[in-house]
Amino acid sequence: MFLKNAWYVACTPDEIAEKPLGRKICGEQMVLFRPQEGEVTALDDFCPHRGAPLSLGFVRDRQIVCGYHGLAADCSGKCASMPGQRVGGFPKIRRYPAVERYGFVWVWPGDAALADPAAIHHLEWAENPEWAYGGGMYHIGCDYRLMIDNLMDLTHETYVHASSIGQSEIEEAAPITKTEGETVVTSRFMENIMPPPFWSAALRGNGLADDVPCDRWQICRFTPPSHVMIEVGVAHAGKGGYHADATDKAASIVVDFITPETESSIWYFWGMARNFKPDDANLTATIREGQGKIFAEDMEMLEAQQRNVSTNPHRKLLMLNIDGGGVQSRRILDRLRLIEAERVTEIGGQS
Amino acid sequence: MFLKNAWYVACTPDEIAEKPLGRKICGEQMVLFRPQEGEVTALDDFCPHRGAPLSLGFVRDRQIVCGYHGLAADCSGKCASMPGQRVGGFPKIRRYPAVERYGFVWVWPGDAALADPAAIHHLEWAENPEWAYGGGMYHIGCDYRLMIDNLMDLTHETYVHASSIGQSEIEEAAPITKTEGETVVTSRFMENIMPPPFWSAALRGNGLADDVPCDRWQICRFTPPSHVMIEVGVAHAGKGGYHADATDKAASIVVDFITPETESSIWYFWGMARNFKPDDANLTATIREGQGKIFAEDMEMLEAQQRNVSTNPHRKLLMLNIDGGGVQSRRILDRLRLIEAERVTEIGGQS
Amino acid sequence: MFLKNAWYVACTPDEIAEKPLGRKICGEQMVLFRPQEGEVTALDDFCPHRGAPLSLGFVRDRQIVCGYHGLAADCSGKCASMPGQRVGGFPKIRRYPAVERYGFVWVWPGDAALADPAAIHHLEWAENPEWAYGGGMYHIGCDYRLMIDNLMDLTHETYVHASSIGQSEIEEAAPITKTEGETVVTSRFMENIMPPPFWSAALRGNGLADDVPCDRWQICRFTPPSHVMIEVGVAHAGKGGYHADATDKAASIVVDFITPETESSIWYFWGMARNFKPDDANLTATIREGQGKIFAEDMEMLEAQQRNVSTNPHRKLLMLNIDGGGVQSRRILDRLRLIEAERVTEIGGQS
Repeated sequence: MFLKNAWYVACTPDEIAEKPLGRKICGEQMVLFRPQEGEVTALDDFCPHRGAPLSLGFVRDRQIVCGYHGLAADCSGKCASMPGQRVGGFPKIRRYPAVERYGFVWVWPGDAALADPAAIHHLEWAENPEWAYGGGMYHIGCDYRLMIDNLMDLTHETYVHASSIGQSEIEEAAPITKTEGETVVTSRFMENIMPPPFWSAALRGNGLADDVPCDRWQICRFTPPSHVMIEVGVAHAGKGGYHADATDKAASIVVDFITPETESSIWYFWGMARNFKPDDANLTATIREGQGKIFAEDMEMLEAQQRNVSTNPHRKLLMLNIDGGGVQSRRILDRLRLIEAERVTEIGGQS
Repeated sequence: MFLKNAWYVACTPDEIAEKPLGRKICGEQMVLFRPQEGEVTALDDFCPHRGAPLSLGFVRDRQIVCGYHGLAADCSGKCASMPGQRVGGFPKIRRYPAVERYGFVWVWPGDAALADPAAIHHLEWAENPEWAYGGGMYHIGCDYRLMIDNLMDLTHETYVHASSIGQSEIEEAAPITKTEGETVVTSRFMENIMPPPFWSAALRGNGLADDVPCDRWQICRFTPPSHVMIEVGVAHAGKGGYHADATDKAASIVVDFITPETESSIWYFWGMARNFKPDDANLTATIREGQGKIFAEDMEMLEAQQRNVSTNPHRKLLMLNIDGGGVQSRRILDRLRLIEAERVTEIGGQS
Repeated sequence: MFLKNAWYVACTPDEIAEKPLGRKICGEQMVLFRPQEGEVTALDDFCPHRGAPLSLGFVRDRQIVCGYHGLAADCSGKCASMPGQRVGGFPKIRRYPAVERYGFVWVWPGDAALADPAAIHHLEWAENPEWAYGGGMYHIGCDYRLMIDNLMDLTHETYVHASSIGQSEIEEAAPITKTEGETVVTSRFMENIMPPPFWSAALRGNGLADDVPCDRWQICRFTPPSHVMIEVGVAHAGKGGYHADATDKAASIVVDFITPETESSIWYFWGMARNFKPDDANLTATIREGQGKIFAEDMEMLEAQQRNVSTNPHRKLLMLNIDGGGVQSRRILDRLRLIEAERVTEIGGQS
């Protein structure tokens, strides 16, 4: 179960720089390619001639050419030509709305008529030169909702990430979860604590003392279909915490775009946006490396959890206060999914 | 779906030189072995004692001996002996007709009573000393009919084999397909073109100028159950093309024996027979290496196509003029399969 | 089909020395751990909070702590604490009776109320200082009953282990099988034969001439659920064979604990106990290495046999006199399994 009528991150631009990319998104096997500099297109990755994947082909004159027998399709999915053939009667290839924005390629795996690029959330950090971004992508064998649960309940940092961002004070501070429209926000504030290793390094990186008591915060924001942005940071204690001046804190946004591949696997685009020292490429690389290790720890846990849940499909799991973020996010997803299903039924009824 | 009452290439002699070979052919798990020099035998690869594969055993006194507890079977599949046992009442092991011919081991996975070695097509190139042959075998994860399609439509050479035998003139010359009895022939002739790299090398190998306009031909012959022989060659332009004197051309036969393993995998025996410089072992090795690379390109495409077709079983594919060879070959296979099925029904009705 | 109400070897103590171990036994996914020195506990490897495997966690204060969000369970499976939570209403985690004895960790995957550690067979060699033991464990892809068959019919040694313990005289000496209550005993005696390589080495290791005629014996004892102990040895010929004085023979016990993982895979704990030179650690290591190679030969055969049997589920196998040990062992297992099933039905009827 996933929302189909939604924008998902499909890939990063470097993945389609050299040649077309075949990728399954929400169960739809797509080929993603650049017809020309600055454009992106997504089509069904299935040549109507003999079923070869178009992603094994190449781009020529703004068209994708099948690498088996040369059928060429334009960006609308229309068969434009094939050597020695009249292609007028050839079936059209399904097109998926696709757009490049904020440093990512986005696709809409559902009904193309409903796709509006304006619906992609504005990402200030991606366009403002005062911010820097670094990130990566993992393919993980788990239901995308297990990853939402993970990110909306950072209690796990104490256990899964004990050596980097975990600390016992996290679990002592109860999180508060609120739903605002289609957004779920889980917040946790810790006061007058010593910063864990990752944040000590960030303070140093920001030119601040790293061995003094701090206030720490984590504000997780889920928005459909499966994006989680987490404001995280530490400020020297007594300077205003989350609201402290930039000169007294190290803060950033953990960026998580979770794209379902199948019911039990995801393309996980993770990264961090920061608004300090945005031009320090070494710092970006260092943070990226540390974050990559942290998310690899989650990967092992999530895949093990998925195997356990898959082999025990009827067991009910607990829903505690710390699970509120995940629970409320799932509720929104269930509601939106129902609306999607009703729309399909209605259309079916009219035809 | 495959024809069972037919001769298939099971292996090459070197594969059974040292010890028995276990191989599944048309869904039948067989053990192939040499009872003695010059003989081949194929039996069900299942010891009637405890189900161990006989292919893990060894040959002794013209019998195959199970490597688990020593049951020995003769070439008819009769249990001949077992240590400490009377084997008179032991069930017989199914025998599959097998014969060595033309440098290959052939088996008949269907009704043994119908097997006639005389039905194996005569292969002139395999016995005439004026010819040389070199080849190899690939295990490929695709329906054997996708490979027939591939070989009966060489349009794909322009795309899949662009750097060796492909050239744009191929797709400009429409192929002609004819069915003669159970044989399907797809021919394509190109006149006054420059030879592609593979054929330039062949001309040089044959002591001919390699940078002059040529006539090129491809004559693909399908015969049941799944053999495709392709006459290919180039002649200096204006010398008669396909009918040119041997001194004006480089010609050979691409040999393809496609043996189904399962519904979606094959043992693909490929090679090339040539009637120039038959004693030049280096040339044989060079051609074999080049051909091996070319067929590896097909392998990648066919396995990707199979995955796409398997996950979309209800999609209809196009049948263009270039697909005529494959389409007509499948028609013959369907007809023969029907005859096989009716025979089984008839036998069933009588009993 | 396996007996659930029985003691199985789950692991060796070194496997839980550093951290908890996740292992599936008779289809039950368990976490095994040491709450403290000298104790062992087995629980369901599924955290009731979000389904994470407890085996990814750690032990603290005699409790196992989930590595995802810190739920801690005591040795009875009761949730003892979780950061920031009241755990009074949390569901209990299933506990499997577990005990350490004779150098192994034993678990009872069935009804805990029926588990009595006194039912674990006494193993004299594991406690008496005049004996030494060395062994190992293999994970093998076969039905545990195929391994019982293997061990209750040593005729296969001539074929599978030709270079170590096999010799043609084995198959010339017919085995005798008897059932005594729930124990099946298959015996084979060979007189006045030359010892095979493994036994020559054992005679030398025991300070005896290794190139003289010997009497050899193999006495295989199956006891439920799936343990096979084999008394094996050679004595200088004419000294009384099995009953010869210790100074005239080399004898030992082949130890086999077969623990089903699934219907078609096992954890196979193998080893050898000997009552000569018990303090010679080098000899223990040498025997262990030789035995490891021998059982690796069985592994290849058993996995191939399992594949053959799985793809031909309806074929009947032969049951010869040499198969008597396996056949009678299976009969006992079938009878005990029936009793187990009836007990469940009865309980169901009362509720």
